[in-house]
Amino acid sequence: MILLKNVFLDNQACDILIEQNKIAQIAEHINAPNAQVIDATGKAILPSFCNTHTHLAMMFLRGIGEDKNLFDWLQQDIFPREAKLKPEHIYALSRYGLLEMIKTGTTCFTDMYFYADETLKAVQDMGMRAIIPYLGMDFFDDNKTDEQIRQARTYLESPPSSPRIQKVLSCHSVYTCSEKLIRAFVALAKEYDTYLQVHVAETQKEVDDCLQKFGCRPVELLYRWGAMGPKTLFAHAVHLDDNDMRRVKETGTTLAHCPTSNLKLGSGQMPLQKYLDAGLKVTLGTDGVSSNNSLSMMSEMKLAALSAKNQADSVTAGKVDDIFALATRNGFNAFGLPAGQIKEGALADFILVDRNNVFLLPDNNRLSNMIYAADSSCITDVFCDGKAVMRNKVIPNEAEIIADFKHTCADLLK
Amino acid sequence: MILLKNVFLDNQACDILIEQNKIAQIAEHINAPNAQVIDATGKAILPSFCNTHTHLAMMFLRGIGEDKNLFDWLQQDIFPREAKLKPEHIYALSRYGLLEMIKTGTTCFTDMYFYADETLKAVQDMGMRAIIPYLGMDFFDDNKTDEQIRQARTYLESPPSSPRIQKVLSCHSVYTCSEKLIRAFVALAKEYDTYLQVHVAETQKEVDDCLQKFGCRPVELLYRWGAMGPKTLFAHAVHLDDNDMRRVKETGTTLAHCPTSNLKLGSGQMPLQKYLDAGLKVTLGTDGVSSNNSLSMMSEMKLAALSAKNQADSVTAGKVDDIFALATRNGFNAFGLPAGQIKEGALADFILVDRNNVFLLPDNNRLSNMIYAADSSCITDVFCDGKAVMRNKVIPNEAEIIADFKHTCADLLK
Repeated sequence: MILLKNVFLDNQACDILIEQNKIAQIAEHINAPNAQVIDATGKAILPSFCNTHTHLAMMFLRGIGEDKNLFDWLQQDIFPREAKLKPEHIYALSRYGLLEMIKTGTTCFTDMYFYADETLKAVQDMGMRAIIPYLGMDFFDDNKTDEQIRQARTYLESPPSSPRIQKVLSCHSVYTCSEKLIRAFVALAKEYDTYLQVHVAETQKEVDDCLQKFGCRPVELLYRWGAMGPKTLFAHAVHLDDNDMRRVKETGTTLAHCPTSNLKLGSGQMPLQKYLDAGLKVTLGTDGVSSNNSLSMMSEMKLAALSAKNQADSVTAGKVDDIFALATRNGFNAFGLPAGQIKEGALADFILVDRNNVFLLPDNNRLSNMIYAADSSCITDVFCDGKAVMRNKVIPNEAEIIADFKHTCADLLK
Repeated sequence: MILLKNVFLDNQACDILIEQNKIAQIAEHINAPNAQVIDATGKAILPSFCNTHTHLAMMFLRGIGEDKNLFDWLQQDIFPREAKLKPEHIYALSRYGLLEMIKTGTTCFTDMYFYADETLKAVQDMGMRAIIPYLGMDFFDDNKTDEQIRQARTYLESPPSSPRIQKVLSCHSVYTCSEKLIRAFVALAKEYDTYLQVHVAETQKEVDDCLQKFGCRPVELLYRWGAMGPKTLFAHAVHLDDNDMRRVKETGTTLAHCPTSNLKLGSGQMPLQKYLDAGLKVTLGTDGVSSNNSLSMMSEMKLAALSAKNQADSVTAGKVDDIFALATRNGFNAFGLPAGQIKEGALADFILVDRNNVFLLPDNNRLSNMIYAADSSCITDVFCDGKAVMRNKVIPNEAEIIADFKHTCADLLK
C-alpha cells in the first residue's frame, strides 16, 4: 500500500491510498498505518498518458532525413537503416523510448514494430504498461503470408510476462498486407479475443490507390473483411468520408489521431472536431520519433488542439477537456483499461506535477496548462500499475539505458 | 573574461573565449590565464532565441477563457482583468515571464504592452536583452492621441538603463490607432532613428474592415503613411496579397510569425514558405501567453515547421535550417544585433545544452532535435550579453520571483 499525503486533486488537497495496482480511496484525511507514505505537498495528481500509436524502436532514426519527400525519406534514409536492425538492437532502443515516455508522463502505449518480444522485455523491465502486437506485413508475398500467420498464432499462444502487458495483432495496412493475411489476422483476433491495429486512410494516395485496386475505400474494405469492431484500432484515419465515419461508429472502432506525424509527412489534418461531434472514439498517438520527433504526449496534445481549431475553422473546436481525454482515458479505455482518471477503483497510472513549476502557473486551468504550456520539467513522479517508475525525477538505471542506447546507435548508424 | 572549455560546436569540441559581451575567439585550445573557466564537457553550444512578438506581462492570464470566440474571450475574460492592471503589477508579471524565457533559452525579445518602464526594470534586473516600445493605441480618441504622442516622445528622450535595452515605438494596429497617431509615431521613429512595431493583417476581418474603411489593405495603408522600412516590424502578417508582399520586400520591413497564436485564435496560417521564397525577412514570436500559452521558442519552432509544411502542402517547406534561423539570427538581426550565431565577433547570447539529455539523442541533427524534440530540460545554461542568467539550471532569485508572481496573480484574479 502507498499513501499519497496532501496531494492536489482538482482544486483541493487530499490523501490518496493505492492498494495493489488500484486507487483504493480518495479522502481529505486517510489513516493507513501499514502504507508507505509519500509526502506529495506542493504536487498535483493527474492521470498519466496513453500513447495509442508509435513505433518505439525507431528512436535511433530521430532527425534522420529531415524535410524530404516521403519516398526519398523512406528509400534513402529509413529502409536502409531499418534493414540493419537485429533483435538484439530492439531491446536497447525500446528501453530508451520508454525513458522518454516516462519523463513526459506516459505509462501506457501501443506499439507497432518488428521483434515484438524484445519490446515486451523492455516494457517488462521498465515497469510500464503496453499493448504490443505481432506485426503482419507480407507485401503480398504468399510465402511471407503463411509464415506470418503461423508466427502470429505462436505469439498469441504464449501468455505475456505481466498483467501489465497485452499481446495483440497488427496488420500494417491495406497497401502492404494481402487480403489473406488480414482475414487470417481478423480470425486470430476473434479466436484469441484480442485487439487488432491497422494504419488506415493516412494519406489521400492510400485512399485513391485502394479505390483503384478494390473499388472501395480502405475503411469499407476492412469492414468487408470483418476487420472492424470495438477491439479494432485504426491509426491515423485522416481521410474518412461519411460512409467511413458511419462504419467506424456502428462498429465501435477506435481511431488513433497522430497530428504531428500527419503534418510532418504531409498527410493532412484529421477533422478531429467533426469526428468527435459524430460520436467517434478518438485517442492520441505520437507515431514514431522518425516522424514527430518526440514521444511527448504534452506536445501532441497542443498540436491536436491547435490543429482541430485550424481544421474546423473554429476556436471552439479542440476543447481542453476533449483533448485531455484523447490523451488519457480515451486511450486506456480503447484497450479495456479502467484508467485515465483519478478516481476510486481506477488503475493507479498517474503522474505528479510540481505546482510551483514555472510552466504551470498561474493555476487558472490545470488541464489547459498541461496541454499548452507544460513540458517534461513539470513532472516529478510517474506511477504505473501502482508502482513508481519515476520518483522525484529519478528513473532507475537511466545512465545505463542512455549508454546502451548510444552504443546501439553507433552500431546502427555507422 | 569567460573561457568555455571543451564545449561542442557543431560536431567537435572546442574552447570559446568570451570577452566583455562578445564571442572573442573560438579554437581547439585556448589559453587565457585571467579568464573564469567554465568546464562545458558534455554540453553543446547553440545561439539563444530571440522572441520577436509577445506581451510579456500577460502571464497572469494563462489558461483564462479557453476555447472561446475572440470577442467573448476579449470582452468576458481579458479586458476586465487587464483593467485592474497597475504599474506595480507589471514588474512582477514581467519578471515571471522572463523566468520562463530564460528556462526555454530566450535571451532577447521585443514586447508590446502597457507601462513599459516597469517591463524595462524587470529586463534590467534579470540581465536580459530587450527591445521595448512605448505602446500607442488611441482608439481614435483625439485626447488620447495627443497625450500618447507626448508620452512617446518623453519615453524616447530618456536613455535606456543598459546597452542591452532599446527603447522603441509601437502602434497597436490600424483598427485601434488613428492616422494622426501612426503618422506621428512614424515621424518620431525617424527623428530618434528607432524601431516601429505594428500588428498587421492578423485576421481576414482586419483586412476586410480596412478595405471597407480606407479602400486599401493594411499593408498598403501603412506604406502610404510612411510606416514601412528596415526599422519596421509587422507582427502576424498572416494575410498578405502579392502587392503587400512586394511592399514588404521593397521597404525591407520585417515580419514576426506567431504560428501558435494564429491557430489558437483562429486567425489562419501564414504562408511562411511563400514569404521565404519571395525573400521576405521573417522572424518568430510566441505572442502573449494568453494565446499560446507558452513563451517557449522551441515549441514555437516545431509548430512553425509543421504549419509551413501543412500550409504549403509540401514536406520540403519549413526546413530545419530556415526555422532555426527564424528563431535566432533573423530575430536579432531585425534589431541590428549581431547575434544568433556562434561565431567570433557575435554578441555572447547563447545557451548550453546537455548532450546526454534524453530528448537530444541520437545527435543525428542537433538543430532538428532542438526544433522537434527538445524542451526546457535540455538547457543547462543561458548567457546574455556575455553574462550567465542561468548556470546549471539555477536562476538567481527564482523562488522569490515565483512567490511575487503568485501574490500578484492573487491580487489580479480575485
